[in-house]
Amino acid sequence: MSKGLVLLSGGIDSAVTAYIANRECAQLYAMTFRYGQAHSKEVGCALQLGFKLGVERHKVLDIPLDGLGGSSLFRKDEIPITAVGGIPSTWVPQRNSIFLAVAFGWAETLGCDRVYIGTNVVDYSGYPDCRPGFIDAMSNALNLASKQYVEEGKEIRIETPLSGLGKAEIIKKGLELGVPLGDTWGCYKGGEKACGLCPSCQIRLKGFKELGIKDPVEYEER
Amino acid sequence: MSKGLVLLSGGIDSAVTAYIANRECAQLYAMTFRYGQAHSKEVGCALQLGFKLGVERHKVLDIPLDGLGGSSLFRKDEIPITAVGGIPSTWVPQRNSIFLAVAFGWAETLGCDRVYIGTNVVDYSGYPDCRPGFIDAMSNALNLASKQYVEEGKEIRIETPLSGLGKAEIIKKGLELGVPLGDTWGCYKGGEKACGLCPSCQIRLKGFKELGIKDPVEYEER
Repeated sequence: MSKGLVLLSGGIDSAVTAYIANRECAQLYAMTFRYGQAHSKEVGCALQLGFKLGVERHKVLDIPLDGLGGSSLFRKDEIPITAVGGIPSTWVPQRNSIFLAVAFGWAETLGCDRVYIGTNVVDYSGYPDCRPGFIDAMSNALNLASKQYVEEGKEIRIETPLSGLGKAEIIKKGLELGVPLGDTWGCYKGGEKACGLCPSCQIRLKGFKELGIKDPVEYEER
Repeated sequence: MSKGLVLLSGGIDSAVTAYIANRECAQLYAMTFRYGQAHSKEVGCALQLGFKLGVERHKVLDIPLDGLGGSSLFRKDEIPITAVGGIPSTWVPQRNSIFLAVAFGWAETLGCDRVYIGTNVVDYSGYPDCRPGFIDAMSNALNLASKQYVEEGKEIRIETPLSGLGKAEIIKKGLELGVPLGDTWGCYKGGEKACGLCPSCQIRLKGFKELGIKDPVEYEER
């Protein structure tokens, strides 16, 4: 059986991905990044999820991407409320490229043969680094720089089990697998309750609504 | 004219690359990583070189790759003296992948059209992430995740001006361009003087010897 490494942000997508990976792998490792987000609430959720899953090791890595600018996610004074066409203001340049490259580095040391990431169709529209074409190209590049591949022809596969799924389908799969959805966090604000207004909250709420289920996460009253 | 970003480690290769880039670009930015090396002497050299070149901005980014293990470069108690066949013990998994991905992220924010890296034939033998095939694959992947490329078809090119050159040729080019070679540092140890024994020192000394020139960097007496 496989030895896997999952990129776990603390959001609903990566949580469901981690639970899928846990079924498919004999050993599972988790990796979470603090990359300069305005709040670290989702990092706490990621650690809780990793603990509940009983991952072998959970690495939290600090990479100060906020110093490079380019994303409204780094602005503590401004909440990105809308995303209208094109690449949203919440886009962090090369975020998934960086995460995947670092993950492959750790995967090599651990001897993992799979790296899981929760990219899906909801992301495709706006974020180029979530599209299958990018994932394939990145897999090709990173394997060319991987010791196992170069010396023994052993590939590290990037697994995207949510690829092709919409938010409602992801939530449904999460419920089937027993993912504690109340312990996930997607809101761009780091308040006690989710704001319900940011694009991340809106997509999440729409997903639950489509299934006719109440989101276990609490939202601010309006 | 181009707007470039150079990966500047403080070693002789990246220094020469930076001086080449400075001739080719109207504006030049520099990026240096503290990634958990046992010493930071080369980072100081990188900053000095960037200052002498008069780069627009020089970003030093901390990425704690030492927490991922996998390289003798992270061990403060052990000096990697020999490199005999295969991938050397000083190999840091996916180092160039990570550096290039982060560089593309900053390049996007800055609007750069070129990213310079000092990979060369000396590196090819041991380090897979220095080979032209990898550089091409990585360029392909990172452009697929770049806003400029996706929205406007504007590619960011990875420039490897030292590709095909050996150490003596690189030093020669450095002398022609007026690179302050005494301000570069390659020794794996962070002593006051270079050790003269580690693979990095040996390759460097061999290069100077081939040219019949004395290395301006001081070495420990043996």
